[in-house]
Amino acid sequence: MRRTQLFMPTLKENPSEAQIVSHRLMLRAGMIRQSTAGIYSWLPTGYRVLQKIIEIIREEQNATGAQELLMPTIQSADLWRKSKRYDDYGKEMLRITDRHGRDMLYGPTNEELITDIVANELNSFRELPKNLYHIQWKFRDEVRPRFGVMRGREFLMKDNYSFDLNYEGAKHSYNKMFVSYLRTFSRMGLKAIPMAADTGPIGGDLSHEFIVLADTGESEVFCDQELINMKPPGKDIDFTLNLQSIVDDWTQYYAATDEKHNHDNCPIPKDELVTARGIEVGHIFYFGSKYSDSLGAKIQNSDGELVSIEMGSYGIGVSRLVGAIIESSHDDKGIIWPESVAPWIVGLINLNADDMSCNEICESFYELATRNGVDILYDDRVDRAGAKFADMDLIGLPYQIIVGPKGLKEGFVELKDRADSKVERHNVDEMSSWILSKTRN
Amino acid sequence: MRRTQLFMPTLKENPSEAQIVSHRLMLRAGMIRQSTAGIYSWLPTGYRVLQKIIEIIREEQNATGAQELLMPTIQSADLWRKSKRYDDYGKEMLRITDRHGRDMLYGPTNEELITDIVANELNSFRELPKNLYHIQWKFRDEVRPRFGVMRGREFLMKDNYSFDLNYEGAKHSYNKMFVSYLRTFSRMGLKAIPMAADTGPIGGDLSHEFIVLADTGESEVFCDQELINMKPPGKDIDFTLNLQSIVDDWTQYYAATDEKHNHDNCPIPKDELVTARGIEVGHIFYFGSKYSDSLGAKIQNSDGELVSIEMGSYGIGVSRLVGAIIESSHDDKGIIWPESVAPWIVGLINLNADDMSCNEICESFYELATRNGVDILYDDRVDRAGAKFADMDLIGLPYQIIVGPKGLKEGFVELKDRADSKVERHNVDEMSSWILSKTRN
Repeated sequence: MRRTQLFMPTLKENPSEAQIVSHRLMLRAGMIRQSTAGIYSWLPTGYRVLQKIIEIIREEQNATGAQELLMPTIQSADLWRKSKRYDDYGKEMLRITDRHGRDMLYGPTNEELITDIVANELNSFRELPKNLYHIQWKFRDEVRPRFGVMRGREFLMKDNYSFDLNYEGAKHSYNKMFVSYLRTFSRMGLKAIPMAADTGPIGGDLSHEFIVLADTGESEVFCDQELINMKPPGKDIDFTLNLQSIVDDWTQYYAATDEKHNHDNCPIPKDELVTARGIEVGHIFYFGSKYSDSLGAKIQNSDGELVSIEMGSYGIGVSRLVGAIIESSHDDKGIIWPESVAPWIVGLINLNADDMSCNEICESFYELATRNGVDILYDDRVDRAGAKFADMDLIGLPYQIIVGPKGLKEGFVELKDRADSKVERHNVDEMSSWILSKTRN
Repeated sequence: MRRTQLFMPTLKENPSEAQIVSHRLMLRAGMIRQSTAGIYSWLPTGYRVLQKIIEIIREEQNATGAQELLMPTIQSADLWRKSKRYDDYGKEMLRITDRHGRDMLYGPTNEELITDIVANELNSFRELPKNLYHIQWKFRDEVRPRFGVMRGREFLMKDNYSFDLNYEGAKHSYNKMFVSYLRTFSRMGLKAIPMAADTGPIGGDLSHEFIVLADTGESEVFCDQELINMKPPGKDIDFTLNLQSIVDDWTQYYAATDEKHNHDNCPIPKDELVTARGIEVGHIFYFGSKYSDSLGAKIQNSDGELVSIEMGSYGIGVSRLVGAIIESSHDDKGIIWPESVAPWIVGLINLNADDMSCNEICESFYELATRNGVDILYDDRVDRAGAKFADMDLIGLPYQIIVGPKGLKEGFVELKDRADSKVERHNVDEMSSWILSKTRN
């Protein structure tokens, strides 16, 4: 993409309405614009990041055998009355009346709808297990939406629902998502720690929040330092095998959110305890037959008896992740994107768009990159070098190739690593080879 | 994907609520389920088709230089009051009041919102032209939703908006979309004819509907037979060049919807006129400064004067296309998918899942296909051959590989073309080579 064509309205000044760094940087980098309180338009740069996050989530969900579908945003109130959540949900639920006076709502989550679908279509234990996910916009009418996409009203969520014959099956489904989430967040460059969460009236220990560590996180969290250095499972993980030992590895160490942490009586020694700030990006939850009972989702087991399906639900805050990644990876100049979710991998800076040799080399790099599927943003504007450097640091692409007339005379161009600001000099051939090494696979 | 794992609840009987063939077949093939009047959940098979259609649209939009963003579904009523459409729109607009009593609405289209974004961010003619598109769910509260996804209430639309300095620029933007639409629909196996549409108070001739020809189409259309055999532009089309001659080629012949056609005084001889049935799948429209005037979208031209931006909008009914493709491509056994949008390219039928040699060959084909990125659905169920044939014809994958014990003894497996029902016999090695020829590129 050429910068002169791209719709990316960057801002030099910090917008006054933004209180946290990710909100400030997303506005300044031209990623989003607010259309009304807590509701945002995703401009091209922001949408590219969102799509890369979606693609990682999709790949990791599919790897577990989960299947993607798409439920609508608008739901009938009827199902929510059956589950008794219509009145319980309060003002956070956006309630709507259609032209015929029927009560509708903008789905804040989908337990009711998916349970209803499954109740109508599945009959036999032979059709289980199933794990169905969708990536769909949700609406929660927050009293005071703030912090940009971190606490918006219209937000994108991946939610899925597992359906099993019995508790053992449900636990395996739960473990699959536990392991899958470790991989998912790690691929986005995040350190996400699973922390035990409330199970409420369901009981048991099958509820975990996944908390990303970031200095500017929304709340305080506590965990054993061993967890900080643990590595998530590799790509070759076989989700059909028993995953209990991996889950046990991660849950053997202490980890607690502020609400759960016992400050006066912490179970581990102080010198092993890490106190950090965190952002919740995922939540997995086993809830047995809570919804299958109220919505009549029953199947025949191998003895021919009708039994309620065992269920769990699993959520990832997709749009929130964009903010969380920025909170965990930025400096005073701007965003520092991990390669896996960067809007473009390489930024190409032409220091003098009036210089023929600069233009020629830049065009050859740009052409090479686009022809070979390397995500590149070419700043081809006629503008000051300082403005271009500042903009490129702000939007945070992992690598910058800097082409200037002085360097070219001496036979080199520069390659800057955004994360550590280190600059290497390369001749044009070396730089071309490096570009090819960044081809999408 | 293995059929035993896939969530695809097919139906043997025609559902009574479905009046048209695409609705019937989408329900029977387990592609969609209605959640409430005019609102559908897309089950895995349906969603795969929808995503393939989206990907074609995205590729063709990007090829023109259009940039993707995403505007929210919920909008504030304020912008619609500025454009005077809030009251005009009537009951089709789903109106919502949030918890603070503010008037909101579920966007039926996005002229207001995109014009507002551009008005705030673009200042100079140097930043034009821009063409911004998004693929987002819309809601129109139809009095009587029907015909499945062909006239639903919540539906997916690709809409984009072009911004130019003057009429000449706007006309070029219009022509780009004209040509792009010809390519887009053609890639989905559709014969889509552009037909002049009303321009209302805007005047001029820059408004075309794209009508897909299908025997079961919703309305009658009329066109010169020359149009039926015209080929859309190839992949190598250069959208930066003047496209007027291509547009002229297509608009030189008579083509009219029922509303526009003059039955008594048709301008072309009867023997050159084709009367057919059609389905509207796209609409492109130039509307000058209608919205930029009311929403204050002005930029400085090269003389330093503030002028209203010239705009056009361009829509494709994305979810509707799934129905339109089925209407134009089916037989009495089921759907016949074009390869480009088929949920899977190949269906593999194991005629006897109790036979060791059948299983072995099927597993080897399945493994070969998945390892090499060939979209394959393997019917590995223990079921009657007749049921498997009927299901596979119903869901309409372009090719079927049929593996039975009798054939294997004689050294062959069968390859059936869904469109013409022709069956070829191949040995296992030939079949493996054929599978590899279907690798996604």
